[in-house]
Amino acid sequence: MSIARHDPTAILSNAVVHGETVYLAGLVAKNLDQDVKGQTRQILDEIDRLLAKCGSGKSKVLAATLWVTDIRNRAPMNEVWSAWADPKNLPARACVEAKLADPRALVEIMVVAAK
Amino acid sequence: MSIARHDPTAILSNAVVHGETVYLAGLVAKNLDQDVKGQTRQILDEIDRLLAKCGSGKSKVLAATLWVTDIRNRAPMNEVWSAWADPKNLPARACVEAKLADPRALVEIMVVAAK
Amino acid sequence: MSIARHDPTAILSNAVVHGETVYLAGLVAKNLDQDVKGQTRQILDEIDRLLAKCGSGKSKVLAATLWVTDIRNRAPMNEVWSAWADPKNLPARACVEAKLADPRALVEIMVVAAK
Repeated sequence: MSIARHDPTAILSNAVVHGETVYLAGLVAKNLDQDVKGQTRQILDEIDRLLAKCGSGKSKVLAATLWVTDIRNRAPMNEVWSAWADPKNLPARACVEAKLADPRALVEIMVVAAK
Repeated sequence: MSIARHDPTAILSNAVVHGETVYLAGLVAKNLDQDVKGQTRQILDEIDRLLAKCGSGKSKVLAATLWVTDIRNRAPMNEVWSAWADPKNLPARACVEAKLADPRALVEIMVVAAK
Repeated sequence: MSIARHDPTAILSNAVVHGETVYLAGLVAKNLDQDVKGQTRQILDEIDRLLAKCGSGKSKVLAATLWVTDIRNRAPMNEVWSAWADPKNLPARACVEAKLADPRALVEIMVVAAK
C-alpha cells in the first residue's frame, strides 16, 4: 500500500495516508490566546483542511483521541465538537486529561480517518 | 472501503468498522459504584458485545490503550484483563495514568481490532 | 487479512501485524537508570528491532503516541527522536504528559507502521 506524507515539521508529518487510512498528528491551536472553545474551533478547522488535502473529510473520521489540560474543559470543548461533527457519521472517541507541550494549549486532538 | 458505525451517542460512535479494521470508543463502566476490578469487567464485557456486533471478537484485538486514574490500579486492572484476554492472541497495549471525564470512573479502555 | 503476533509478554504482544499495518506496544526502556535521552534511545532501538521483525522499519512509521512523565523532558526526548527519525518520512505524532507504570520510566512510545 502506498504511503503519502503531508505538511511536515521538523519532527513530524501533520498527515500521513496509508492506503485508505489517514493519520493526522495531534493538533493544537495556532492562536493560543483563545479560550478552549476558540482553540477547539481552530483545531477542527485545521483537521478539515488536512483531511481535504488527503482526499478525506469529517464524515470519514474513524477515531479521535482528545486531550484536555483540565477535564472541566471537556464540556465547552464538546459543544464545539458537536457543532462540527457530522451527526450521522460520528467517530469512535476517547477524551482524557493531560498536560500538553505548550502550557497555553488547552486541548489537543488526534484523528484517524478513512480516505 | 466501506465504513459502518454502531451504537452512536450524541458525540461519538461506540464502534466504527472501516474495511477490516474495527475502532471502538474509549469505554468506561456504566456502574461506577464498583471498584477498579468491577469496572474493568464491565468494560471488557462491553468490548465483547461491541466486537461481536462488528463481526470481531477478543481474539482479534490488535491494539489497546488503557487509562487508569491512579497508576496503582494497574495491577488489579491487569488481573481482570489477563483473565479476559486470549493468551494466544494478545494485543499490543499501552497503559498510562490520566484523569477521566467522570470523577468516579477508574479505568477507560479503547481498542482497535480486526474484523 | 492475516494477523501475526510477536514477542508476547503475560499481558500483551509487543508487535501485532494486521495485513499491511503494524501495531507496536507502548514501549519503555529496559534500563531505567538512564536519563530521558538514554531511555528514548533504548526505546527507539527496540522499535527498530520490532519493526524489522515485522518486515517494516522507521521509514514506514505512520503515527506515534509519546508520553513523558514530565513535559519538560519533551525537548531532550525530541533531540533523540530527531536524530533517529527519517526526515523524509516523518510520522504523525502526539506527545503528552502522563504518569507511567514504572515510576522510574520517563518516556513511553507506541507506534503504528506500514509493513
